[in-house]
Amino acid sequence: MIVVMKPGASQGQIDHVVERIEQLGLRSHVIVGTELTVVAAIGEKRDGTKQALETADGVDKVVPILAPYKMASTEVKKEKTVVRTRSLEVGGKPIAVIAGPCSVESREQILGIAKFVKENGAGGLRGGAFKPRTSPYSFQGLKEKGLELLAEAREQTGLAVVTEVMAPEHVPMLAEYTDVLQIGARNMQNYPLLEAAGESGLPVLLKRGPSATMEEFLLAAEYVLKTGNQQVMLCERGIRTFEDHTRFTLPLATVPYLQQHTHLPVIVDPSHGTGKTGLVTAMARAAVAAGADGLMVEVHPNPEKALSDGFQTLNPDAFRQMIAECRRVAQAVDRLI
Amino acid sequence: MIVVMKPGASQGQIDHVVERIEQLGLRSHVIVGTELTVVAAIGEKRDGTKQALETADGVDKVVPILAPYKMASTEVKKEKTVVRTRSLEVGGKPIAVIAGPCSVESREQILGIAKFVKENGAGGLRGGAFKPRTSPYSFQGLKEKGLELLAEAREQTGLAVVTEVMAPEHVPMLAEYTDVLQIGARNMQNYPLLEAAGESGLPVLLKRGPSATMEEFLLAAEYVLKTGNQQVMLCERGIRTFEDHTRFTLPLATVPYLQQHTHLPVIVDPSHGTGKTGLVTAMARAAVAAGADGLMVEVHPNPEKALSDGFQTLNPDAFRQMIAECRRVAQAVDRLI
Amino acid sequence: MIVVMKPGASQGQIDHVVERIEQLGLRSHVIVGTELTVVAAIGEKRDGTKQALETADGVDKVVPILAPYKMASTEVKKEKTVVRTRSLEVGGKPIAVIAGPCSVESREQILGIAKFVKENGAGGLRGGAFKPRTSPYSFQGLKEKGLELLAEAREQTGLAVVTEVMAPEHVPMLAEYTDVLQIGARNMQNYPLLEAAGESGLPVLLKRGPSATMEEFLLAAEYVLKTGNQQVMLCERGIRTFEDHTRFTLPLATVPYLQQHTHLPVIVDPSHGTGKTGLVTAMARAAVAAGADGLMVEVHPNPEKALSDGFQTLNPDAFRQMIAECRRVAQAVDRLI
Amino acid sequence: MIVVMKPGASQGQIDHVVERIEQLGLRSHVIVGTELTVVAAIGEKRDGTKQALETADGVDKVVPILAPYKMASTEVKKEKTVVRTRSLEVGGKPIAVIAGPCSVESREQILGIAKFVKENGAGGLRGGAFKPRTSPYSFQGLKEKGLELLAEAREQTGLAVVTEVMAPEHVPMLAEYTDVLQIGARNMQNYPLLEAAGESGLPVLLKRGPSATMEEFLLAAEYVLKTGNQQVMLCERGIRTFEDHTRFTLPLATVPYLQQHTHLPVIVDPSHGTGKTGLVTAMARAAVAAGADGLMVEVHPNPEKALSDGFQTLNPDAFRQMIAECRRVAQAVDRLI
Repeated sequence: MIVVMKPGASQGQIDHVVERIEQLGLRSHVIVGTELTVVAAIGEKRDGTKQALETADGVDKVVPILAPYKMASTEVKKEKTVVRTRSLEVGGKPIAVIAGPCSVESREQILGIAKFVKENGAGGLRGGAFKPRTSPYSFQGLKEKGLELLAEAREQTGLAVVTEVMAPEHVPMLAEYTDVLQIGARNMQNYPLLEAAGESGLPVLLKRGPSATMEEFLLAAEYVLKTGNQQVMLCERGIRTFEDHTRFTLPLATVPYLQQHTHLPVIVDPSHGTGKTGLVTAMARAAVAAGADGLMVEVHPNPEKALSDGFQTLNPDAFRQMIAECRRVAQAVDRLI
Repeated sequence: MIVVMKPGASQGQIDHVVERIEQLGLRSHVIVGTELTVVAAIGEKRDGTKQALETADGVDKVVPILAPYKMASTEVKKEKTVVRTRSLEVGGKPIAVIAGPCSVESREQILGIAKFVKENGAGGLRGGAFKPRTSPYSFQGLKEKGLELLAEAREQTGLAVVTEVMAPEHVPMLAEYTDVLQIGARNMQNYPLLEAAGESGLPVLLKRGPSATMEEFLLAAEYVLKTGNQQVMLCERGIRTFEDHTRFTLPLATVPYLQQHTHLPVIVDPSHGTGKTGLVTAMARAAVAAGADGLMVEVHPNPEKALSDGFQTLNPDAFRQMIAECRRVAQAVDRLI
Repeated sequence: MIVVMKPGASQGQIDHVVERIEQLGLRSHVIVGTELTVVAAIGEKRDGTKQALETADGVDKVVPILAPYKMASTEVKKEKTVVRTRSLEVGGKPIAVIAGPCSVESREQILGIAKFVKENGAGGLRGGAFKPRTSPYSFQGLKEKGLELLAEAREQTGLAVVTEVMAPEHVPMLAEYTDVLQIGARNMQNYPLLEAAGESGLPVLLKRGPSATMEEFLLAAEYVLKTGNQQVMLCERGIRTFEDHTRFTLPLATVPYLQQHTHLPVIVDPSHGTGKTGLVTAMARAAVAAGADGLMVEVHPNPEKALSDGFQTLNPDAFRQMIAECRRVAQAVDRLI
Repeated sequence: MIVVMKPGASQGQIDHVVERIEQLGLRSHVIVGTELTVVAAIGEKRDGTKQALETADGVDKVVPILAPYKMASTEVKKEKTVVRTRSLEVGGKPIAVIAGPCSVESREQILGIAKFVKENGAGGLRGGAFKPRTSPYSFQGLKEKGLELLAEAREQTGLAVVTEVMAPEHVPMLAEYTDVLQIGARNMQNYPLLEAAGESGLPVLLKRGPSATMEEFLLAAEYVLKTGNQQVMLCERGIRTFEDHTRFTLPLATVPYLQQHTHLPVIVDPSHGTGKTGLVTAMARAAVAAGADGLMVEVHPNPEKALSDGFQTLNPDAFRQMIAECRRVAQAVDRLI
């Protein structure tokens, strides 16, 4: 940690900072520059000593040197984490495909789409039973009935079920039906939920919040990892920016950045990331080329009649075409679908 | 709702849209323009019919006309909502001040600061007992012990306690100690939590999420209002932008905008909104001048030793000075502190 | 254009809007809804009639229906524009590569790198002679001397020279040396410059401003097109967002969006778009997979000694590797490099 | 400057960094931490040595310590700069008001409004003659005819004329008619224009670009200051964010931040900053309370008929009311209008 003093800070102020650093159990090192003085604090820990220093008189700012996450970092674990559950494998050579409708709507819908995506290369079945909706007046999901239908689809296809959990107290119930607990973007910093999901022992798919930095995203993952559950997948699904021609802005540089900084596998959701059916396939191809370990895509037998998110959902033909195109790109980057 | 067809949409596509509109129980009205055709859907409801139309072939986009929130709107209730609990009144002529430390740290700390802020014009005491922290390695709060100390401070001062609730299952316990349930920015779209807070019957202070639009913010309030609980306060605490000289960007135009569109009172938090002690007072004055109904401010007997957020916290002298300055501005806009 | 009246607007206010619409030479059409009234203005033009209506009493908002750009639009010209100059072709089946150093620094540097990139598949040579630099204390380019060196490199290699123009009065001088005039991101809305560049008759490479919407970007292109110059290339180079792990956020959905809405070719600059050497290659691959018509990349014989932008510049080996990887992805999307 | 080495950087890499630092004429200082090593470079200059270091092998990042601007800084000049020209004074105890229409439209319009704003407390007259417009199909201003009308209004009222310059070659012509050269937000980083404006010797009003950081804003001012022209005013006019209920987001914390870091006076433009007539007055009050040295506001005799920006323009009654309200707030912060 580097404590930058204001130009003109007094010797007393510098001494005070040195004293505080040593009280915190760190070593200090004063560097007198031509225009100002900085004090290095050696032995930095990841626990918020920063703020103990930045409020001292005469301090301009405190610059942390270490990244604040640890268990998610490639510093700590070099080999890539691979998540495997039923027919889903994320983090190995094959690129995982998790596909399905935004919401589970009926037995016919979910069983039909499950078989279809399975035949077309998917390893996971997505489908919302408990739906977080911006408006209280929107369809909120079939709830437990939806979970039963997902479990039935799993039995028929062998697909791993991926469904969202919205509250800590729902975890035990969901755990009976699902293979992966999804934490939605709105809940990325819902810490009691992260801990409850981690403690279930199930693999967790963590979506990036729309205004989360990489550091915040990895620290959210750290909440799950700290429970002892190492089966965490990170999912980029778009951020909130000024752009208005897409629903969110999908920043694919996240993919190589995360591949360099964490051992956790990285999935991209081009459906939420663009919010427009006509842009999903191109961004799915781009995600594969950027090095993603998986794709999460909304597919519905008839998007026009979907109860949610129809505008960003592929129909079966478009999904089949997307897989065909992504498969070619996957081969070009030495991966498989 | 206005359905805008693509230039060159076929008559069959237009007829299909008309048919869909009528299936949804609305009246349709076709307007043939010089370059393209639009279809108005009359009788629009607030329940997501938008997406039933925007996936139809030949449709370019669907433009909603009505705001999707209702109970929060001045269309539905013209007179301003006033929240009153113990010595706190928000939404009337006086400008409410809710002050206190980021976290409850000790009996001495919280009782001392409570007396001090009470003497200096505050009506509410803030203080975190359950702390959502970005890093799992940061101080997480004193939990129930912190609540007991808050309640003791309330007894001694008459201040209303305002503290954050992080999970639906904590609501009953918190309800024993607090006067206002605060929903933090990270949880603005944690819908089970909004509903549980609403059902407690306690006043709710809802913080804006750092990437929430006004529409999303008001729809989050709508989740609380829908439980029948009308005691909702909105709190602007800054948004996530590219600016890096402040922790968040504090967009004060939120204040007059909300005053025009909702009857709910509006509070501003200049501590989180700037993240820098040296900017808090100027922004508190600006918030009052913009028409805010209240201020929420972090104060600590010794910010340098605070266990969280010291860098944005006022010390007692600075707080007293802030109140003195805000009081003058309040009078200039015909309000009181 | 749809004029949305406020709920409770008076008949007089509605009549006034109708009258204004007709004064503007448009037809009006009143639609009385259940909660409010809207007035359609038919025959909408692209010239700012919007604001003549939105200030009228009783009007809530005005929603334009037509996109404001015209000559850039696929509505007006369906076939793709192809720009060809010397060995550069942008918009056809091959994916164009424009490569070179951030700044021209010396004869040896630019001639060496020009030969190298030519041998490795580039059709255009980038290199700044007049450099817009955020700080007045940074290296500002070799100016006319740099142009002479670029022209010499062109002679030796046949590459098309692409260099930035910063002021209208420089256009004639630059036109003697360059094949393509580049308008930098900072100047995307420098209208006198856009017009002067257009009037030169040279192909123009227009970079997206870091906070420009698609509409603003296409309207900037429209300024060039209006001079009669159709040789315009659009370049996505990243936008300003809250993300801090990259220099800018590179939103690749721009590529398919523009391919659907304009006939102009689309280039991606992964060097500025990420600002980090280690992310450039992955994003170049992703850009190709997303459907880009070209790549613009910074390459320097020794990035560590570059006078500008070394941190985002590839060395020759990394460039060769990037081309090899992009070539495979290009084939997977039926393109060539 | 602090060079942070990657964990596990080799001794050779550290030695190489030390050598580079010394080649650059700086002193180096190696600090070996528990997890990684940092190297301080002492004697840091403001000229881009950063990038000479950040591309070296084994370097993780380089953290500058000094702000890159100098002449704009309070480090260099402590006393506040005051700009005085005709009846305009910016930076002293009175809060300056610069008011007028978006565009000069006619003799009657500009003379009428000039007299009106003069009588109501303005010291400067704004009015565009050369208008930068997003669309080439929008009204582009009366050009030189508009300047003549502004000069006539100045003669009749004594107001200082503030008008925008769009190209370096226009500076001499504008200098005949105007008292202050305005650099618009789109041109904040148009460096030839900044230099030409600086060299005119006229006071310069520099608007913040919608995606400019404080550092970029102050470095743009530095381009003007470097010409020897000290008469620079900074104008906050809103930034581009995800917010869609206002045209831009007006971040008033800019005001106290700049007051602490620069001696240049700070003006706020609540018209562009909100883009909505109904929000202008509240934000003008807030700007005054935050400590602004001036306000820049759009006023038009009949906003509904304005040729540009009517939606954010006050009519004369609203302007008079705004001044009355701001005057009271000004007194509450010991200023005058």
